Parts: sequence; C-alpha cells; structure tokens
Amino acid sequence: MSSPEPQDGGYLGPTPTLQQAVEPDNCIKILLATDNHIGYAESDPVRGRDSINTFREILQLAIANDVDMLLLAGDLFHENRPSRTALYQTMAALREFTMGPRPVSLEVISEAGFGIKRDESWPTVNYEDENINVGLPIFSIHGNHDDPQGTGAEGALCALDLLTASGFINYFGRLELPGSVDNDEDALEHGLQVKPVLLQKGDTKLALYGIGNIRDERFHFEMRNKRIQMFRPSEDPEDWFNVVLVHQNRVAHGAGRNVVDTAFGDEAHLVVWGHEHDCIERATPQPVSGRPYYIVQPGSSIATSLAKGEAIPKHVSLVKVQGKEFEFEPIRLRSVRPFIFEEFSLAQVQAEDESINLNSKVAVAKYLKSRVNDLIKQANDEWDELHKDDGDEAEERLLPLIRIRVDYSGGPNGDSMYEMGNPQRFGQDFVDRVANPRDIVQFHRRAAAARKKKVEFDNPDEEMVNEALAEEGIEEKMEKLKVSTLVTKYLEAQNLGVLPEGAMQRAVEDFVDKGDKDAISNLLKKCLKLSLQSITANFEPSKEGPEHDDLGEEMEVAKKAAEERYGISTDKKGKGKGKGKADSSDEDEDADMKDDSDRDSMASSVSSSAAKGKKKAPAKKAPAKKTTTTAKGKGKGKANLVSWY
Amino acid sequence: MSSPEPQDGGYLGPTPTLQQAVEPDNCIKILLATDNHIGYAESDPVRGRDSINTFREILQLAIANDVDMLLLAGDLFHENRPSRTALYQTMAALREFTMGPRPVSLEVISEAGFGIKRDESWPTVNYEDENINVGLPIFSIHGNHDDPQGTGAEGALCALDLLTASGFINYFGRLELPGSVDNDEDALEHGLQVKPVLLQKGDTKLALYGIGNIRDERFHFEMRNKRIQMFRPSEDPEDWFNVVLVHQNRVAHGAGRNVVDTAFGDEAHLVVWGHEHDCIERATPQPVSGRPYYIVQPGSSIATSLAKGEAIPKHVSLVKVQGKEFEFEPIRLRSVRPFIFEEFSLAQVQAEDESINLNSKVAVAKYLKSRVNDLIKQANDEWDELHKDDGDEAEERLLPLIRIRVDYSGGPNGDSMYEMGNPQRFGQDFVDRVANPRDIVQFHRRAAAARKKKVEFDNPDEEMVNEALAEEGIEEKMEKLKVSTLVTKYLEAQNLGVLPEGAMQRAVEDFVDKGDKDAISNLLKKCLKLSLQSITANFEPSKEGPEHDDLGEEMEVAKKAAEERYGISTDKKGKGKGKGKADSSDEDEDADMKDDSDRDSMASSVSSSAAKGKKKAPAKKAPAKKTTTTAKGKGKGKANLVSWY
Repeated sequence: MSSPEPQDGGYLGPTPTLQQAVEPDNCIKILLATDNHIGYAESDPVRGRDSINTFREILQLAIANDVDMLLLAGDLFHENRPSRTALYQTMAALREFTMGPRPVSLEVISEAGFGIKRDESWPTVNYEDENINVGLPIFSIHGNHDDPQGTGAEGALCALDLLTASGFINYFGRLELPGSVDNDEDALEHGLQVKPVLLQKGDTKLALYGIGNIRDERFHFEMRNKRIQMFRPSEDPEDWFNVVLVHQNRVAHGAGRNVVDTAFGDEAHLVVWGHEHDCIERATPQPVSGRPYYIVQPGSSIATSLAKGEAIPKHVSLVKVQGKEFEFEPIRLRSVRPFIFEEFSLAQVQAEDESINLNSKVAVAKYLKSRVNDLIKQANDEWDELHKDDGDEAEERLLPLIRIRVDYSGGPNGDSMYEMGNPQRFGQDFVDRVANPRDIVQFHRRAAAARKKKVEFDNPDEEMVNEALAEEGIEEKMEKLKVSTLVTKYLEAQNLGVLPEGAMQRAVEDFVDKGDKDAISNLLKKCLKLSLQSITANFEPSKEGPEHDDLGEEMEVAKKAAEERYGISTDKKGKGKGKGKADSSDEDEDADMKDDSDRDSMASSVSSSAAKGKKKAPAKKAPAKKTTTTAKGKGKGKANLVSWY
Repeated sequence: MSSPEPQDGGYLGPTPTLQQAVEPDNCIKILLATDNHIGYAESDPVRGRDSINTFREILQLAIANDVDMLLLAGDLFHENRPSRTALYQTMAALREFTMGPRPVSLEVISEAGFGIKRDESWPTVNYEDENINVGLPIFSIHGNHDDPQGTGAEGALCALDLLTASGFINYFGRLELPGSVDNDEDALEHGLQVKPVLLQKGDTKLALYGIGNIRDERFHFEMRNKRIQMFRPSEDPEDWFNVVLVHQNRVAHGAGRNVVDTAFGDEAHLVVWGHEHDCIERATPQPVSGRPYYIVQPGSSIATSLAKGEAIPKHVSLVKVQGKEFEFEPIRLRSVRPFIFEEFSLAQVQAEDESINLNSKVAVAKYLKSRVNDLIKQANDEWDELHKDDGDEAEERLLPLIRIRVDYSGGPNGDSMYEMGNPQRFGQDFVDRVANPRDIVQFHRRAAAARKKKVEFDNPDEEMVNEALAEEGIEEKMEKLKVSTLVTKYLEAQNLGVLPEGAMQRAVEDFVDKGDKDAISNLLKKCLKLSLQSITANFEPSKEGPEHDDLGEEMEVAKKAAEERYGISTDKKGKGKGKGKADSSDEDEDADMKDDSDRDSMASSVSSSAAKGKKKAPAKKAPAKKTTTTAKGKGKGKANLVSWY
C-alpha cells in the first residue's frame, strides 16, 4: 500500500469542472466512498465502533449534501461472513438513514442491471419498490472481503445480497466468470461480461459498470485474452457518462497482481477504484497520462492497518455529473480516529543531533517516548482544529493511533544496532492515551532485508516460520505468511491424486478466509464427478482387465482436465496459458508495467452481444413509488446493449 | 418426543368457542405456527428447500386467511447462525409476503414491549414505521435453536434481531436473566421478568407474554423460587386476553428437564407451546385439567428427525380472539413432505402369519422391502388425496420420508434374533422413490434396553462411545451423546483452577452448537476479573508473606463465587440450591410429575413492579402509517404494568 505523500490540499493534475452552470434537474449528485470495512476490530474495546461510526457519518453526509445516490466500491464489510453485531449495526444505520421521504429522481432504464441479481419478487432497485420508502439510494459492488461465496440453493451469495433482499441497498457488479467453479457453460464461452446499470435524471444519462472483485490472476488472464466485454446501449451510445467501478490491486504488491491505470477503454469517463486504502489527493479524480478518463481513489474510511498510507487524512468525494461533464468536491471525514505514522532512523537522529543520548536501552526508550508524546499532542491538536466549530454537537475526542517505525541499524560506538526494549512494554505508558498501546513502535533494520533468505516449505516448519516472523516486523510478515501460502507449498509437496492442487488451494482459502464451510467438500464432489466422467469417457480397459498403469494415466488426464476447468489457465478454446498460481511469471506481470499494450484490452472482440441477453429483460413488476419518485415516463428507455468496440 | 397417538380428527377435551357472533372490527385473527427450522438439511439435494417452502406456505396461508398477525413460537431458524442462503431465502419470502398494502388494525398500546428490543431509531413494531408498508405483522419469540448469543457491542443478538432490524418481523420474548453471563445487577436481583406486548383491535385487548427459550434448568430454578414475574396493566387488568408463548421441553426428556402443563398462572388464557415438534390434535388448543387455560402445541412445520411424533400430519392453527373468548380452526399444511413411520416386531409378524418367511437375511430383506413399498404407496396416495383439488396449480408430488423401526429380537428356530442386512444397502432400491434412502430402516432389540449399562466417562473413550452407538439406534444415541455431555464429563475430571466447570461447559456448548466464537474467551476474561476481585477483597496475607495454601483456598472461594454467579444454583439471597447440571436430581424433577405444587409458581412474590420500569417508556417516534393502519387514537392507552398477584 505505497502511496504518494499525503498532500492535503495539492492536486496532481488538471481537475474536471462543469462548463455549464449546475441545473439541479439535470445534475446527478453522487457521494463516492469505499472500503468501509464494517466490523473491523469490532471486539477491540477502544476501536470497536470506529468502522460503523464512520459509515454512519458517510450516510449523514449523503443526506446533508442531498445526493442522488451513495456509490460504494466494495468491502463494505471487513469479514466475508460479518458478525451478527456488524450486520445488525449496518442494517440499523441503513434503516435510519436510507429510508425516508426524500424524493429519488434517478430513473432506471429497463434492461439494465445485468450486474444486479434479480429476484422475481422485487424490482431491480429498492427505490422502485412501492412498499419501501427509500430516500437515499445506495449502489455498491462487492470487494475482496465481502465477495460472493458458497454454493447454496440460491448460488453464491455475499453479505450485500442480504442488504439487497432487505431492501436497503442495490448490489451490483456480480460477474459471471469463465472457469469459476459455479459458472455456467455460457460464461465459460464468453469471458467476463460487464453490463451497466443505466440511470437517468433529466438529460443526464449515467451508466455504472460494476466489476466486483475477482482474483487478480483471473482479471489479468481475462484482460490478456481480451475476454472482458463491456456492453453499452445500442441507441445513442455516446450520450452516456460511463463510470467503471473496480476493486482490485492498483499498486503492484507482487508480480502480476495489479491492474494498471491505463487498462480501461476510451469509453470510460471516470474509474472509481476501491480496494486501495490510501486516500489519493483528497479523493479527487486524477487524469491518466495519455488516456481520456479520470481515476478517483477515495481510499478506505477506516485504517485497517498501521501502514503509512492509512495515515493520509480520509475523505469521500462529492461528484456532480451533468451531461457528460463532471466536477467534484472532496469532503474530509471527521469521525475517523486520528492516525499519525512516523518513520525515522536512530542513526540519523543521532547524526543530526549528537546531544541526544541513545546509548542504552533506557535512553532509547526515553527518546522514543518523547517522540510519541509529541505525536499524541500533534494528533490531539489536529482533532481539535478539525472539530473546533462543532459547538455543542462535539463528539468526544478519540484516542489517536500512533505508529513509529524505527530503523535501529547502526548504533553507538560502532555497534551494529541500537539496543531496543520490548515494544509491548513500551506501550504500557500510553494506555488510555493512544488507541493502540500494544503496537505503537515497530522496529526494523535496514540490513535485514538483504539477509532475508528464501523460506522454503515442505511441511510448514514452525521454527522457520517463527524465525521469519522474528526477523522483521511481525505485521508485515504475517501479511506474507498467509494461510494460503502455507497451503500452496504444502499441497505442492503432496500428490493429491485426482484433486487439482490449484483448485484445492482456493477451496482451502475460501474455507479459512471466507468461512465457507462447504468449500472443500463441494470441490471434492465436483472433481470426483468430473474425474469419473473423464475416465469413463477415455479409458478402455484391455480385454484382460484394466491395467493399473493406464488407469493412473487416465487419472492424471482427468486431473489435468479438472485443473484446467477450475484453474485460471484455461479457456475452452485453448488460448490461455496461465498456471493458476500466484507466483506465475508471465512476461507482462512485472511490477512496474505502466504503459503496456493493454489499453484496449477491455474493448470486446465480439461486436454485438445484444441478442444474447436472453436471461434478462424481465418486466418491471412494481412501479416506482409515486410519492417519492420524480422520474418521468416509466420504462421509456428500453436499452439494447452492445459491447464496446 | 413421545406424544399422544396421531388422531387426525378426534379431540381430547372440550374446545373453546366464541359465544357471540364474530364482529370483524373486534376480532383479532391470528395464525399460529412454530418451529419452522428454516435451513434444516439445506444441503440435501432432495430435501434442501423443504423448510423454506413450508414457511412460504404459512405466509401465504396468513394472507389467504386475512389474519391480523402471524404468531411464531420459536426456532424460525434451524441454526443459531443461519447460512447466508437460509437468511436470504427467509428475507426474500418475508419481503414478498409481509410487505404490501393490506391494512393493519392492531394498535400497540404504549409502554408495551419490554420483550421487544428497542432501537431508538425505529418504532416498536414494524407496521408503525411509516417508511415500510407492512401488510402482515409477524411476532416471534426465539427458540433454543435461534436464541441470542454473543457479547458484541449491541449485546447478545439472535438471527431474529436481523429480521427485526430489516423491518420484516417483530421479535419479542428476549428475557433479562438473573445469573446469566450478560445479566446486569438488576436482573440478578429480580429474577425473570415477563412484560407483555399489548395490542388492541376494537374492543379486544390482547397481551402477548413471550418467554423465549432459556435453559430448562434455569427455568425450573426460577419457577421453584417464584422468581418469574408476569406483569400486567394496572388499569383494567381483567380486560386482557393473555397469551403466553413458551419454547421449552414439555415432554419429560430427562429428570427435571421439562415444564409441566400446570405451571402457568390463572391469568393465562392460552399457552402457545413451541419446541415440541409433535402436532397435537391438529394444532387445536387443549384444556388443562384443573386449570383455567388452554394449551396449543402446533408442532414443527418440518420433520427434523425421523421420530414417530414428526409423522403426525403437520398443521397450523387459525385463532380468533374476541373480547376474552376465542375459537380456532386447524389448517393442514399441504407443502410438507409426507412422512410415514411404522414400528413392528419381526417375531410378532411371524406369530401373526406363519407363512411369512423370515428365515434368512435375504428373506427378511425381501419382507421389509414389501412393507416399505406398501408405505410408499400409502404416502403417495395420501399426497394425491390431499392435493386432488389443486388443479393446474398442483405442485409436483414430493418423495416421501419412510421410516420403519424394526424389532429383530426373537428369531426363527429359537435364535435370539433375526438376521439383518445392512440398513444403508437396503435403501439402494429406494433411491428416487423415497427422500431418505439411507436411513429407511432402523433396527433395534427389545432386550437391549435392559442390558444397557451406565456409560461413564473420565476421558471420553471412543470405544465405549462406539459401543453405545452400536447398541441401539444411532440416531437416538447421537441425541444423547451430545458434545455437551462429553465436555461435562471431561471437565469434571479436570481441575480448572479459577474456572467454574458449569460455566465453562456452557461456553463450550455455545462455541460448538451456536457458533459463538468468542464464548470461551469472554468467559475467561470475566472469570479472571471476578476471581481477582474476590481474592483481593478476601485475601489477607500474613505478615510473613502469603501462604500458598491460603491462596489456594481463596481461589477455591473465588471459583465457587463465579460458579454461583454463572451457574443456575445461585440466587443472591441464598435461596437457591440447584447444581447447574443437567443431571440434577431435585425431588420435583421427576419424569412423571403431573400435578405438582407449582401451579402458582408464575405468580409473583413482588406485588407491584410498575415503578421499576425505568428503562422503558420511550416516546413513540413515528406515527403509524396512515394509509395502512385503521387503528384509532394513537397512544391512547398508556399501560402501567403491575405484576400478577
């Protein structure tokens, strides 16, 4: 999560503005926010309510700014299966703020909503349900934390589906994926299809293209093979303001694990980027070099780690779209717990001021405590400044998060390092003064990185893991030593017979990270079925009875077929070549690919797919609520979709 | 789950009838159902949708019969943490059937709703929320499957809280429990307080007393000590029709584990009994010998075991209350999968017809298959008869559940038993003809019961467990050999230091059965805190420093105090004597206690508690929806509550 330096005020490039005056009846006002991570640290006695508090602030801002919709770019929830408390808090907040008599002026153009899961018994969007008084429409895609999981009777569902069923939000951006365990043959055939939610207010036409999080490897595969199809209306396709929502890595966390800024088609006007927690330029849209669109990265509304980027002041963005122009206004979030991150080297400190005593453990601790005290004061001052006009409404000042990242290499008298105390005992002096007394200080040594050896596993070796953890900051390491890594290495060392390791790894991840308790047994069932089909189709035992060697070979074949089917490596036409693994080293997956040839990768290779939309086009069941909707002709625009070209 | 014989048609006693003609404006129509167990067997490819299908039928019946409310007595969900699919299906069904323009005529009398968890941001009942068009009010207590769990920021919550927050139902019957881990001092002091939800339609006044499931042992303790207080309005207390909802064992499953029919006060008019799955007398209220009230036990709407009682045809009850009279009408559920249970002895069969050949495994299997075939035909005929008038709307006939319970003791030629085949292979012939091919037949031996030895544990011994399982029907045994039993026995054999075993057992149960992942760590934290308090308060080290023996004693004392606090054994005033264990042998907990001295146990020992209702009485926030409510004066009845005397 690297980021530009926090520059609360400066802008990196030209910013869009409306050329005409705002016409309220033609102007769509959107509040943009993302990564609210409701439920994060919910059992922490100090920070437990932070996530829901800020989400509530965002809802209040949406109302206060009289927006037409709140648009979220994923990870509304921190856990794939949010706790009952988190769900309850969210529902209570949504009921309080999204329901009400405010008129909604966004008309849904029919045949939209490929991305919106349709249930026969309710209208496409909640504010068209005549039994619910929706005053604030919310549209949200899913993120990587709250993506659809499971294979129940209703298919893969995510927590946002529950909020949709309750009538609180409009979840969109669920994608049919080729090669996914739950895909149908159609999706396998066609790749990733993104059809927009089409909305209109007065003369302004807004198309929302939601791409809920998918595995980065798959996203790359689909891009490389030009299998991402964006659809747009066949009539007046140029009249729409196209907003694309993604929830993928933007920063290169590892080889081939991010989507590049230039990846989107010329048709896009604004890309809303979720997932990355750094608030870029106060949530202001930034132009992309050589491309006609802007990208806005609002960042998370809560710090879920003590990383540098999370310390950038959190904002949301108020966007006004009129015709095909737009402008925006950043809004600082005021309920966010202050977080100050500081990084320094003791050797440097010493070099700059020799009078500072760092010659003993006690002296170092004393110095660090004075730094922390300064930061606490700074955090408190900033809070007071931000809230100085609150008056009687003022909330109690929140204990700040403080993180100092201290390089202790070098040392007094030619030692290789400074003497450090125990980071946790260090924090005891700051209980009740900071929100994170147990992990204020993080020590690291510059030299350590070079000494780092490649950790190899056969069976995960506890000692090695601990050693690796001890070597650097535990936090960063834990990030890397995810269960999934251990599982991959372990599985690779085994022979799983008919079970494809890649699919198995994914099932284990789903089981562990997403709480999908049936993930493994479901995979097992499917693989066995596929293997049997494959073997019975291909295997002809000789008259003398089956030879075991042949059967073994057939099992290998069946396994490969299953791996292809479930891995990312496959497309049915044999175009794919990926390996379905995170450490794939394909040439274009280099960490600093910035200008690649992918710029038209989202343009479709299929010129028109309108005829294929057979599953869609259900009749509108309920008219928009008369008292609250000012939209004019019902069902006036029947939009046939064709893919971008 | 023993039960009276299924007598679809006969009545055990006189049935209540309205003496006056029905006056629609004064008559409250209630559809009574319970134990819908949504999510039961949801991953079974054949039976997966049974629970939600029948719940949907019940919702449709409520609409079709134009009732004022649907009243549920617990276990709406099968799992404490229902799967996303189960929650989604339920929400979708509720959105489809409970929302709509039907007028609601039930006025809530203010200061009701002690049992209704209040959230400041919405009205007490969903149909008073002006932002939601509720056409069918649902009131439900929780059961033992879906009781409140956890200690999140919002306190213990249950799945019904999510449905309440969504605006779909009105959950009531959450109780403040003395001695529970989450209680407050007030509850500890006062015992169990049951305040009614007060509703009025025309002249008819309805008081709903919800007692959501609590542990049977605690229920008993509270009853014995007359700590169950029922409150009623201080004005015109005699004008109310009092309905009590319980979700406890009615049948004596073990010593002291059931509530007796006579336990309720004279003030009750109708007791709705959830939990027991047998549908008693077509869900018709039955008089209680020597008591002035009726009990109705609708039974579950789905068979969650293949026990005899589940084979009784499933009904719900349509109750009409007018003034203080009521009448009812049983309604057969038609979507329920047919289930036929038959029990016979091979020796008996042979004795009655010597021509039947049972002399070999093959011959026995052949005979049993013919019996099963007969039962399948019977089940199918019954389905066809029940659905003969469905016409074009007819649902496809469901595969039946068939269970034969076969006593194979005795045997040909003086053998001690008949030769039996493998019960699972037996079912292979019935795949696609019954819904439960794997467990159609259950073998048992009459003699076995006598030989049954008391199973004792130190550490749970796998062999013993298996032996016990093998001895009788696995299903019944599994019921008894619950995790909780193993845990109890195991914990008793350990020395847990400051941790009270009873509370620990409960925490483990909550962890395992209810999926409350914080149950154990929360208990630990609380116990450590209590122990420290107790030790620092009581322990005075001698001048020579603490003697370890004394400290040990103090820890014992602290542990006892904690055990008292968390166990059922306690009440603060030292009246209690229970042991907090399931096998408590108190004298009045005998399996066939029928006429005991508990009849006034629910009458309060406190003459008036009205003054104590300080937490209640919030102002109504939103007026009832004007378009859908015909209730007259808003907030007219301000009911002060006093306890029953």
